[in-house]
Amino acid sequence: MAGNTFGTLYKLTSFGESHGRGVGGIIEGVAPGLELDADFIQQELDRRRPGQSAITTPRDESDRVEFISGVMDGKATGTPLAFVIWNKDQKSGDYDNLKDIYRPSHADYTYQSKYGIRDHRGGGRSSARETIARVVAGAVAKLMLNKLGVSVQAYVSQVGTIRLDKMHTDMDLSVAESNIVRCPDPEIAKMMIEKIDETRKAHDSIGGVVSCIIKNAPAGLGDPVFDKLHARLGQAMLSINAVKGFEYGSGFNAVEMLGSAHNDEFYTSDGKVRSRTNRSGGIQGGISNGEEIYFRVAFKPVATILKDQKTVDKEGNEIVMKARGRHDPCVVPRAVPIVEAMAAMVLTDALLINKSYL
Amino acid sequence: MAGNTFGTLYKLTSFGESHGRGVGGIIEGVAPGLELDADFIQQELDRRRPGQSAITTPRDESDRVEFISGVMDGKATGTPLAFVIWNKDQKSGDYDNLKDIYRPSHADYTYQSKYGIRDHRGGGRSSARETIARVVAGAVAKLMLNKLGVSVQAYVSQVGTIRLDKMHTDMDLSVAESNIVRCPDPEIAKMMIEKIDETRKAHDSIGGVVSCIIKNAPAGLGDPVFDKLHARLGQAMLSINAVKGFEYGSGFNAVEMLGSAHNDEFYTSDGKVRSRTNRSGGIQGGISNGEEIYFRVAFKPVATILKDQKTVDKEGNEIVMKARGRHDPCVVPRAVPIVEAMAAMVLTDALLINKSYL
Amino acid sequence: MAGNTFGTLYKLTSFGESHGRGVGGIIEGVAPGLELDADFIQQELDRRRPGQSAITTPRDESDRVEFISGVMDGKATGTPLAFVIWNKDQKSGDYDNLKDIYRPSHADYTYQSKYGIRDHRGGGRSSARETIARVVAGAVAKLMLNKLGVSVQAYVSQVGTIRLDKMHTDMDLSVAESNIVRCPDPEIAKMMIEKIDETRKAHDSIGGVVSCIIKNAPAGLGDPVFDKLHARLGQAMLSINAVKGFEYGSGFNAVEMLGSAHNDEFYTSDGKVRSRTNRSGGIQGGISNGEEIYFRVAFKPVATILKDQKTVDKEGNEIVMKARGRHDPCVVPRAVPIVEAMAAMVLTDALLINKSYL
Amino acid sequence: MAGNTFGTLYKLTSFGESHGRGVGGIIEGVAPGLELDADFIQQELDRRRPGQSAITTPRDESDRVEFISGVMDGKATGTPLAFVIWNKDQKSGDYDNLKDIYRPSHADYTYQSKYGIRDHRGGGRSSARETIARVVAGAVAKLMLNKLGVSVQAYVSQVGTIRLDKMHTDMDLSVAESNIVRCPDPEIAKMMIEKIDETRKAHDSIGGVVSCIIKNAPAGLGDPVFDKLHARLGQAMLSINAVKGFEYGSGFNAVEMLGSAHNDEFYTSDGKVRSRTNRSGGIQGGISNGEEIYFRVAFKPVATILKDQKTVDKEGNEIVMKARGRHDPCVVPRAVPIVEAMAAMVLTDALLINKSYL
Repeated sequence: MAGNTFGTLYKLTSFGESHGRGVGGIIEGVAPGLELDADFIQQELDRRRPGQSAITTPRDESDRVEFISGVMDGKATGTPLAFVIWNKDQKSGDYDNLKDIYRPSHADYTYQSKYGIRDHRGGGRSSARETIARVVAGAVAKLMLNKLGVSVQAYVSQVGTIRLDKMHTDMDLSVAESNIVRCPDPEIAKMMIEKIDETRKAHDSIGGVVSCIIKNAPAGLGDPVFDKLHARLGQAMLSINAVKGFEYGSGFNAVEMLGSAHNDEFYTSDGKVRSRTNRSGGIQGGISNGEEIYFRVAFKPVATILKDQKTVDKEGNEIVMKARGRHDPCVVPRAVPIVEAMAAMVLTDALLINKSYL
Repeated sequence: MAGNTFGTLYKLTSFGESHGRGVGGIIEGVAPGLELDADFIQQELDRRRPGQSAITTPRDESDRVEFISGVMDGKATGTPLAFVIWNKDQKSGDYDNLKDIYRPSHADYTYQSKYGIRDHRGGGRSSARETIARVVAGAVAKLMLNKLGVSVQAYVSQVGTIRLDKMHTDMDLSVAESNIVRCPDPEIAKMMIEKIDETRKAHDSIGGVVSCIIKNAPAGLGDPVFDKLHARLGQAMLSINAVKGFEYGSGFNAVEMLGSAHNDEFYTSDGKVRSRTNRSGGIQGGISNGEEIYFRVAFKPVATILKDQKTVDKEGNEIVMKARGRHDPCVVPRAVPIVEAMAAMVLTDALLINKSYL
Repeated sequence: MAGNTFGTLYKLTSFGESHGRGVGGIIEGVAPGLELDADFIQQELDRRRPGQSAITTPRDESDRVEFISGVMDGKATGTPLAFVIWNKDQKSGDYDNLKDIYRPSHADYTYQSKYGIRDHRGGGRSSARETIARVVAGAVAKLMLNKLGVSVQAYVSQVGTIRLDKMHTDMDLSVAESNIVRCPDPEIAKMMIEKIDETRKAHDSIGGVVSCIIKNAPAGLGDPVFDKLHARLGQAMLSINAVKGFEYGSGFNAVEMLGSAHNDEFYTSDGKVRSRTNRSGGIQGGISNGEEIYFRVAFKPVATILKDQKTVDKEGNEIVMKARGRHDPCVVPRAVPIVEAMAAMVLTDALLINKSYL
Repeated sequence: MAGNTFGTLYKLTSFGESHGRGVGGIIEGVAPGLELDADFIQQELDRRRPGQSAITTPRDESDRVEFISGVMDGKATGTPLAFVIWNKDQKSGDYDNLKDIYRPSHADYTYQSKYGIRDHRGGGRSSARETIARVVAGAVAKLMLNKLGVSVQAYVSQVGTIRLDKMHTDMDLSVAESNIVRCPDPEIAKMMIEKIDETRKAHDSIGGVVSCIIKNAPAGLGDPVFDKLHARLGQAMLSINAVKGFEYGSGFNAVEMLGSAHNDEFYTSDGKVRSRTNRSGGIQGGISNGEEIYFRVAFKPVATILKDQKTVDKEGNEIVMKARGRHDPCVVPRAVPIVEAMAAMVLTDALLINKSYL
């Protein structure tokens, strides 16, 4: 029963189910003396919050983090930072009908297979509500990165077939947070919002892509050979609910390229070794090279839809599952802070490992 | 300095540089009593070997594994299985000219940044020669999986723009090993080989995709929430040299789909819960569901090409690096056994973790 | 910032300070389906509780455990079992005078040195209140061990110079819980209680020894070479507050013995390989051999005493610290359940590791 | 199958059996650029070497370390340092008679129980020959500690009943290496040597104690709560073959003391917080306080003796095992460098962890 801890020195151990008492975690590796900016942490949670806009699930969960340990007078003491977010909107009764049903493309059947027992209420541990713990640990990591000038920003770059084709270097990314779909191009954002709205009305769900940019990361982060920086980023992103793919730098496009067209020539600027093309995505041989790190994360359409579906129950009877419940028609807008959180954790961990032998 | 160990219970700790004394590793978690089929292990190494065909690098490295511990009378004893493959073809002199040069899109600059010192000969630790250790540990993992009837097979599904579009379920995968590019479709294979040959003659390199299929994996493998089976597969694949992307099941294609079209309906067959469509790629909520597990791995064109390139040296001078050396025009044919090896390790590790509490 | 997790597969990650919001932890590796007997867990906490008898600290802390996750309908689900015990008796004001003082033989100075910041209230993280989390995780481990018939029992075998010299095999250990000092010999218990009472009246503290016996552990537990069963037990015990030494089997007495007198001859009984003398303490080469496992743990007199003491403050001024506060004159009676808890965790972890490859 | 790796950031993963091809390991966390002083490393191995004096086993093993990776031009590159010491003196035939016998107080029976298979030749993995890997990793750790002025020195303080009662602070420890028993008091050393010689002639073995002193360790090392510095030292020492007990600072003597007599008063000297009495053994709350760290390690008489002994074979038959083979009458003189090596590894690991967040 592994899998609940992420990181080597900056570590989150996460707990909690959708409809248990609460979700939370223990964060280790927080810099002693760090000011735990409560407003910032709450703001990050609010970016993830259900019910925040017309295109997210109408479940209204005003999640508030409660720190239990590791903090005194607003500062981290260097001891484990435990926190909990109590579950409030626990309509467990909603789920009684799902007790014996394996919902299509959900984790009901696999949890039952693995553990021989499962918490069926709202997906239990497999619920995306678990990502709250990640957002908290990511917010604390961001506070540590901020001190070094490292920034992590994600945005929505695709919803269904509506795709933002501009490179991140050609946009003002700060625009992303000014619209509810979190796309830095206002025109494309509008189309995405319409698409999501249309999907919602059709009682369906739709996939999307979140892109993420890390600026000012120093060269030298990442640990060959198995913990290459992009391999850890990949694991981090693929561990988020509904993610089906990950690519960094030139990604899958690199497949069709020739080496002569793909290689990043080095040049020197202000005494620093630089590359103009950065198809490497800021990482070479698994180690950051000082250029911007960028990657893309593919999300499937969420499995919960408001349509009747064929499936089976625990006894193996083939049944029709009635449409019911509340859900996000498209998760990517709310996935943006989660992607950032995981990236911030990976970066902070790599920074701490690097410091240990410098 | 983390990063040299992969796995929790089935573990490889890897060592070695391209032009040091040798490469190798320590494998833990081998089933006591397992017959270590030396021929099979060597055969796996031979599939990875440079110089094996007209489309791979002409470097001829007849890598032979030497076990140092953990084995008696051909059987694993349950203690650490240490092994080494001595480096023979060490033309270090070839690399003297690279001592002070940062090759474009290689790890020269990043290793120097991270460690303040680097082994410049043939890429040192960042050389793909390190993957030999993975193939050995993967071969041993396969021997353990074989006993359970679990098979892992990879093949080349794309070279440049030449793409095999058939689903794995519509092909005889055993055909893959009958051609030098390792593609299960003989027609496409021929085109791929021509493409690679043409690239080689142009002194260039080209990217590709390796697909991998895992059959007969039992339901229940994988550990929520951070060690989801596909997250571990993703880290494993992204840790292989030249990999830029990973997707499983419907992958990036899921982005453009509606939930109603993407969801896998369950049905019952022979008392087992099954899905016909398997867009989930055999994994739901990070746990295997008993269907075939499949994923795709994107490889960039390798950075070594036989063309002059602009770059900088250690002192920051902008220079032109002369074309020189031997390289693979396309790594994917030789990457096939490496992808299989990493997948076999992930599966075996997940199996052992699962056994610990069943 | 390592150190807050104990175990490989059966794991406790602990958090909390003496005068923060609470203490608690996350337990991983709990068998899915295990009945979490709340009464038993509470009873274990009560055995550790301050204020339980005339010879313990008069601080009255009615610690009650609250499970937040990992449990449904009283059964463990196999997901992380998070729990918290809220701090109630928080007289932080009591500690204002200690804010800038380094108490002799306490961890005030070392925490300040390590972290540059510390929670001075009641010792913060270094308080023995942290051991509550261990008792909870140990109680759950005991529930798992009970199913296999494995028992773990500790008792007080020495207080100051009053020493119980009988071997555990010559006593009825169940007697231990019938007196407040937890010694299985009623006569010796009486003397110990008097000794502690006298020490309390003298405003002083005194050391002691806790012995522990594990019965019915199967052969094969423990992992060579660094995780030998007794090495893990040793780390576990030495991590308990105030512990200064650990010995198992013949222990320090073995030093003066000849091999011919120390070796345990094997014989056969009911088809099992047995040893009569068991100077090995049930462990050979770091692996259990099926005999009783036994060890002794040395506790120093606790550092808090009701006497004035010379010390220094944060500015380096030499001062006299006034006697104040509430404390245990002798910790060993309350340490008994903590020793058992750590032993139960080590055993359970070793059992799970063993199962992974059987 | 855990247990072959020691350390978090400074890590040794060990392999090898007594009569396999060789023993060795992989060291991670070596400072990039560190000069690997080959003479010093060999000298440490020579201190451990069998056959080095009249009071050790007559087996002559001129163990020479061979580094395979992680080093270039005599300097560590920061990549894994793999090494092997080939087994030369492999008289496997000597052990044919032991194939089916469980030697008293050896690990034969427990390995067989655990793995269902064992390498019977010379104890296989349970042989003390495995400690060679520790000495190499400890020697490299010492090279790192030397740069910080931290020294680790062990010596023999007891053989049988012959006990050195002086405190380490009252002796010139450098004297220890000038006699074959490694005791800093020449008079006591002579008595110890005579005792061992007498034991050897009696075809028996005898126990002993190794004491160890760490000087100039900075304050702040060690990680609460489970990885307290002394808990890690304890695990490290208890993992050495034949060790039965560990105590640090006042150790088991603390049991009989009152708090008022045991507490270390602080004073200030040269602006540093100091303690004169140091009964804490340089560690408070699991963290070093800048004073000397000292501890004692109890070794049993080794199980191999040249006397006939009763035991059982694999089939459970009770038999008499004939005296045979070569062994150390007392292991403590050769254990001195092993104790130092483990201590150096623990210290180096704690230093690296500490650096990660300073």
